[in-house]
Amino acid sequence: MPPSLLCPDAFLSPLEIDAAVTRALAEDLGRAGDVTSIATIPEGTPARAMVVARANGVIAGLPLVAAAFQKLAPDIAIAADLRDGATVAAKTTLMRIDGPARAVLAVERTALNLLGHLSGVASATHEFVRRTAGSRLRICCTRKTTPGLRALEKYAVRCGGGFNHRFGLDDAILIKDNHIAVAGGIRAVLERARKAAGHLVKIEIEVDTLEQLREVLATGLADAVLLDNMDAATLAAAVKLTAGKLPLEASGGITLDTIAAVAATGVDYASSGWITHSAPNLDVALDIEM
Amino acid sequence: MPPSLLCPDAFLSPLEIDAAVTRALAEDLGRAGDVTSIATIPEGTPARAMVVARANGVIAGLPLVAAAFQKLAPDIAIAADLRDGATVAAKTTLMRIDGPARAVLAVERTALNLLGHLSGVASATHEFVRRTAGSRLRICCTRKTTPGLRALEKYAVRCGGGFNHRFGLDDAILIKDNHIAVAGGIRAVLERARKAAGHLVKIEIEVDTLEQLREVLATGLADAVLLDNMDAATLAAAVKLTAGKLPLEASGGITLDTIAAVAATGVDYASSGWITHSAPNLDVALDIEM
Amino acid sequence: MPPSLLCPDAFLSPLEIDAAVTRALAEDLGRAGDVTSIATIPEGTPARAMVVARANGVIAGLPLVAAAFQKLAPDIAIAADLRDGATVAAKTTLMRIDGPARAVLAVERTALNLLGHLSGVASATHEFVRRTAGSRLRICCTRKTTPGLRALEKYAVRCGGGFNHRFGLDDAILIKDNHIAVAGGIRAVLERARKAAGHLVKIEIEVDTLEQLREVLATGLADAVLLDNMDAATLAAAVKLTAGKLPLEASGGITLDTIAAVAATGVDYASSGWITHSAPNLDVALDIEM
Amino acid sequence: MPPSLLCPDAFLSPLEIDAAVTRALAEDLGRAGDVTSIATIPEGTPARAMVVARANGVIAGLPLVAAAFQKLAPDIAIAADLRDGATVAAKTTLMRIDGPARAVLAVERTALNLLGHLSGVASATHEFVRRTAGSRLRICCTRKTTPGLRALEKYAVRCGGGFNHRFGLDDAILIKDNHIAVAGGIRAVLERARKAAGHLVKIEIEVDTLEQLREVLATGLADAVLLDNMDAATLAAAVKLTAGKLPLEASGGITLDTIAAVAATGVDYASSGWITHSAPNLDVALDIEM
Amino acid sequence: MPPSLLCPDAFLSPLEIDAAVTRALAEDLGRAGDVTSIATIPEGTPARAMVVARANGVIAGLPLVAAAFQKLAPDIAIAADLRDGATVAAKTTLMRIDGPARAVLAVERTALNLLGHLSGVASATHEFVRRTAGSRLRICCTRKTTPGLRALEKYAVRCGGGFNHRFGLDDAILIKDNHIAVAGGIRAVLERARKAAGHLVKIEIEVDTLEQLREVLATGLADAVLLDNMDAATLAAAVKLTAGKLPLEASGGITLDTIAAVAATGVDYASSGWITHSAPNLDVALDIEM
Amino acid sequence: MPPSLLCPDAFLSPLEIDAAVTRALAEDLGRAGDVTSIATIPEGTPARAMVVARANGVIAGLPLVAAAFQKLAPDIAIAADLRDGATVAAKTTLMRIDGPARAVLAVERTALNLLGHLSGVASATHEFVRRTAGSRLRICCTRKTTPGLRALEKYAVRCGGGFNHRFGLDDAILIKDNHIAVAGGIRAVLERARKAAGHLVKIEIEVDTLEQLREVLATGLADAVLLDNMDAATLAAAVKLTAGKLPLEASGGITLDTIAAVAATGVDYASSGWITHSAPNLDVALDIEM
Repeated sequence: MPPSLLCPDAFLSPLEIDAAVTRALAEDLGRAGDVTSIATIPEGTPARAMVVARANGVIAGLPLVAAAFQKLAPDIAIAADLRDGATVAAKTTLMRIDGPARAVLAVERTALNLLGHLSGVASATHEFVRRTAGSRLRICCTRKTTPGLRALEKYAVRCGGGFNHRFGLDDAILIKDNHIAVAGGIRAVLERARKAAGHLVKIEIEVDTLEQLREVLATGLADAVLLDNMDAATLAAAVKLTAGKLPLEASGGITLDTIAAVAATGVDYASSGWITHSAPNLDVALDIEM
Repeated sequence: MPPSLLCPDAFLSPLEIDAAVTRALAEDLGRAGDVTSIATIPEGTPARAMVVARANGVIAGLPLVAAAFQKLAPDIAIAADLRDGATVAAKTTLMRIDGPARAVLAVERTALNLLGHLSGVASATHEFVRRTAGSRLRICCTRKTTPGLRALEKYAVRCGGGFNHRFGLDDAILIKDNHIAVAGGIRAVLERARKAAGHLVKIEIEVDTLEQLREVLATGLADAVLLDNMDAATLAAAVKLTAGKLPLEASGGITLDTIAAVAATGVDYASSGWITHSAPNLDVALDIEM
Repeated sequence: MPPSLLCPDAFLSPLEIDAAVTRALAEDLGRAGDVTSIATIPEGTPARAMVVARANGVIAGLPLVAAAFQKLAPDIAIAADLRDGATVAAKTTLMRIDGPARAVLAVERTALNLLGHLSGVASATHEFVRRTAGSRLRICCTRKTTPGLRALEKYAVRCGGGFNHRFGLDDAILIKDNHIAVAGGIRAVLERARKAAGHLVKIEIEVDTLEQLREVLATGLADAVLLDNMDAATLAAAVKLTAGKLPLEASGGITLDTIAAVAATGVDYASSGWITHSAPNLDVALDIEM
Repeated sequence: MPPSLLCPDAFLSPLEIDAAVTRALAEDLGRAGDVTSIATIPEGTPARAMVVARANGVIAGLPLVAAAFQKLAPDIAIAADLRDGATVAAKTTLMRIDGPARAVLAVERTALNLLGHLSGVASATHEFVRRTAGSRLRICCTRKTTPGLRALEKYAVRCGGGFNHRFGLDDAILIKDNHIAVAGGIRAVLERARKAAGHLVKIEIEVDTLEQLREVLATGLADAVLLDNMDAATLAAAVKLTAGKLPLEASGGITLDTIAAVAATGVDYASSGWITHSAPNLDVALDIEM
Repeated sequence: MPPSLLCPDAFLSPLEIDAAVTRALAEDLGRAGDVTSIATIPEGTPARAMVVARANGVIAGLPLVAAAFQKLAPDIAIAADLRDGATVAAKTTLMRIDGPARAVLAVERTALNLLGHLSGVASATHEFVRRTAGSRLRICCTRKTTPGLRALEKYAVRCGGGFNHRFGLDDAILIKDNHIAVAGGIRAVLERARKAAGHLVKIEIEVDTLEQLREVLATGLADAVLLDNMDAATLAAAVKLTAGKLPLEASGGITLDTIAAVAATGVDYASSGWITHSAPNLDVALDIEM
Repeated sequence: MPPSLLCPDAFLSPLEIDAAVTRALAEDLGRAGDVTSIATIPEGTPARAMVVARANGVIAGLPLVAAAFQKLAPDIAIAADLRDGATVAAKTTLMRIDGPARAVLAVERTALNLLGHLSGVASATHEFVRRTAGSRLRICCTRKTTPGLRALEKYAVRCGGGFNHRFGLDDAILIKDNHIAVAGGIRAVLERARKAAGHLVKIEIEVDTLEQLREVLATGLADAVLLDNMDAATLAAAVKLTAGKLPLEASGGITLDTIAAVAATGVDYASSGWITHSAPNLDVALDIEM
């Protein structure tokens, strides 16, 4: 995999790339492979293919595209002027591929499925980022990701200019209503969490009201606060109340329609599940000449 | 996994369920698990949880939800009145779970991600099916699926009342423009394909024009024809021309807006990539009492 | 893996090759590897090895042989004038290998086991094909394959000049006596199957008698008919009765002794489980010079 | 897996059983499962199935059959009076299965492929054993096994009354002509091997002539001798020459026709690759009532 | 796996337990299993075994012991009064096992290797904890773990009363000398890190001198400071200088001899690689009666 | 992996190396990779790194170090003058690495964990070997290895000049007290084992007393004897009693303090679990220049 295809400041493990590509190819090749091309395209027929964007968007997934073609045809020639994270207009050529026609056709759909899905996530993220330009607001993702694709989608969020929230249940503490209730209140739950957590684990707590926010601030025990389903006015009040003492994250009801208003409140983060679980694919295609 | 949770007339292998659930749990639990609940919820605290739909839709994924909870807590109690394929209204309870609070909270997001994604696919499919009620048209999916989730999404399409196109490159022949060009025309490519194919492999060929359709019909060598990007009038003409000799599949530009018109043309199948690669999640949630 | 070693018109996935070779090497190398050669052959001793056929036959498995040697010695030199699908006489050299003696000896048995097994399948298939030369009959395999080796054996059947029947339960419908009985008869079961099947799934039905064949033909709902355990006279009558309306497959009692008579009946396909589950290995060896 | 189905004095790891069954089921179920039964057999239809031998032989593989059915239908009822290693006559019922018809039909072929293959190996082994009854000769297998099935086939050899040679390259030293040549002769190679080997690693050496056997005996450094491709007279001479000082193994040209003569020579072991790489399947079937 | 065997406030995923146990059993059973017991112990012989500690220590690994026995003998009876995290004296019985003798003997070494290794880590951790009783100091581990066993060893550290540092490179930022040098100094590197990090990622920075510590404190951008290889006097000065504004971690030269002095300086954390990469096994054994 | 980095006369499978390195990298990179270096080191920054020993010892693991760096940066330049099995003094440079700084830093800890652990085993082994120089005694390992690392540790023992005992339960018979008791005594158990064992399986039996040793010798049925927990005087008596008829292995209480005395008794082997389960890591480090 050409490393220069990765987004400069985001990470995707080669182990993850290899696993995702292998799994995707296996489910498309099945047991008998591309029976159509084997039946109709003579062995040795060369092909040139252009990976093109058919819509405006942000690209994510080029290293997986390259890896997929190389998996089936190790000596295939791959060239790209762009890399992940690039913002492109419709009709932009993303990559040129020269190799055996049978292999190109066999990998086409797998490559496009990977690229279209991740570019869809990156583009959705970018659309949020674009609408908050000039504000302090950072867009971040959630754990509401497509099953099996979390590391890939988290990477695509970075490609789109977003930030990553937790990668899993294990890399930070996020206290929600059930935890508060069982532990006996905000101070009690924060004390319990602080006592259990190591020094490199942050603690965020979710609140529904300004009153709860006040309680959190009074403890001095949280590292961040998630403001759940608050309207813009309440978010603004929360910002004022907090006075920069803690990062604030708006969550719930974050849509392209509301994001500018949320940004205007002065909160630090807004998190959206939609950008990973429901973003539509970016339309990408392979233009093939034989 | 309780078998009765599967859609009655669709198949999903227990091997596939186990693999998908294991992979999804692994990426959420990470190396340290649900550090929040371990820190704040005493061991042994019981919980009762209701899986609920928060929007109207068709359900797919309940066997995976059950498997996910059982993976972390083998003795957890699971009860459901519904099964996959059920059409539900918002606020319907889909499943009841009684077990240790720590396990319930640790599995919550994984279970909802699986259920929301697959129910999204089923619901999108069903919406197409609903708009074509009374016609002969069958909705089917494509190979434009989310990487790594093909078998699950193909199953969800069945739950939504759709039909499955090819599962991969290997279970039928689908001849496209490149194959035709390289082989030297429609008759030539069909002869080549027929010669290579075994007697249990169907051959579909994609055409762009009625003229091409006439050529295909003249050969008597195809099992089905894909009509690519034709408007309703051309589709209707194709139906007339074919006169029931072969199944016809409309592809390209199949949307909720156009589907009724496509159905009215009399074609047999319409295929949509959108229902698998871009259907938004169905909103599902876990209501927990401790 | 040098792609030119594959049979020109058959497919074997590089993922499948890698998995099969890795598994086979792992079970032979065990935990301590080739303790004999490490103890007795000085490191760096070079070896030249010829892979030779010791009996007449058809070759299948050379890409796996190459992959096995490369797995243990990535820089080993491999040359071959032949490729899979070649018909060879005893004493033909199939491949030349130059590399470190320890690696050559460590891979020898694994490589020969793979090549001998698959060439055995290809040769058995070819023997059937040879005895039906001049007829329309095509030899095909079944799902009676060696557990874990289905894709490899299906490929070897192609190398031997045969055709592939279903790769699994999922790529075509094959209705047998139990299905007919439960569904309530031939017309009923075919209607049920046709209703459930997508447009790219073929339906074959097994019949025991000409009377059943007549029923099938009357429905016009089947794509192929399997004639189970019929003698040559009955097969010939079935061919006459069918008059080319459907492909006919003879199954049961297909042996090297009977195949010419079956071919003479005019059926289209004869399927044999023996060629995959019981074909003896082709005798292959490694002649090593150090 | 019911442990009592295993041959009493042979071992097959549950890890190995699970892996083999999972792999075999996966390749037959594919992505869509048993589309025929799902289309034609109503969910919930019960079935009773008898696993029967259709030929005389020795049974191996019942634990895998049970595991395969349980994998798809965990609550299926399985009963057996026999266990692996049993010698049976044609028409003997081996196992009774009661469960959902869809699951029974979906597993049928996988179960029979496993059972037929391993029983074929056990039966072939047993046939050799039977013909040497009354002699000291022990039949043993080689490393010429079907790729990926070594542990299973070595187990089947035990079921048939045979003994196991090396399981891989790593569990004993077997010195052949190349090793002797490179090391500079029989004494030199044995000294080198003895020096490198730990105290729990046996050393066998292959000889072609009585002269070589004399050399081996003179060193006192070998634990066993493989007599390669010797006729019965030479084998008898070797036995006389050795006078019980070392176990002798006859190898090469071991067939059902020659085995009695080999046994008469007084050698201790005869090894056959044929019993694992080329034994035909035992004919087994599933008789199903619905 | 009985959940009650896990340490109450630490987590170990059942997926991790299953993978570790499967891998460990596979490497001990090999291809032929416990050939000694199969040869010498009649099938069906019962055994009772006591897992006992032969030295004082803290126990970690009982769920893995249980899982290992259940893997080979699903119906084996397992009873334990203790659970992971228990401090025990030599000769304490940890678990009682009743089951088939062959299975007990086959699993013995695997179970003891798992238990001895993890209890070794827990006991080493506990010894540090014990020597710092009464101080604010918390003992924590590092990423210097045994390859492949990180999640297990991190869990064992918790069993021993320690805290976990980072689980990997990805769950917190830890800035070292190279990062500082490349980025152009302490303020520059912290600004860069803060800008890149999401709001749930903590930033710790390693310093060698009090001067560097002053620079860090002046930025207000770090969440924790690692004091590298400082003697007790310097550590005490660092504590004074920091005045509780940030958690301080002492690292380098942390041994059982120095730990009390380190605790006396008032730092918050001391991290030791030794407790995971070099702690000797706790001596545990299986006392078996047949 | 450069093959010349392996110890000349020991074996480590490339399959094993790849699996170990992949697993170790995966657990350190996690889902987000080296977030510190991505945040603070510009892409493309080059680095030169020296792998150095910080203590005297014997090196094992260099091929794994190379493989780890190549996994993340396939084009990285690696040079080494030494190979596994080398005895080095503190401050010796073992390997030079030139490549992208981000990759070097991301792999650093994984590489050092692998190298430090295996070199620890090799060095511990070597220390025993060194203290027995001039004697016939060979040091060997046991099955008391770190779970999941057996093949690697057995290899490291060879690097340190030791010999390997059994790799698992399956490659030799080792009869212990329970087996003797159940079988009804020493002669009975040896007869049973000899009858069951193939001709390439050695039989060792453990004895506690000289009386038992006499019994074993009287049978003539064992290949080796393990003398359990005998003091030096008893060991010497055992040697005298045995008079070279069988290899003798001292086991139990084998430490650096006792090993010279054990060697002086004239036994052939001494086995130590400590060298694999409790040897401390060798101190190794990466000196990086950017």
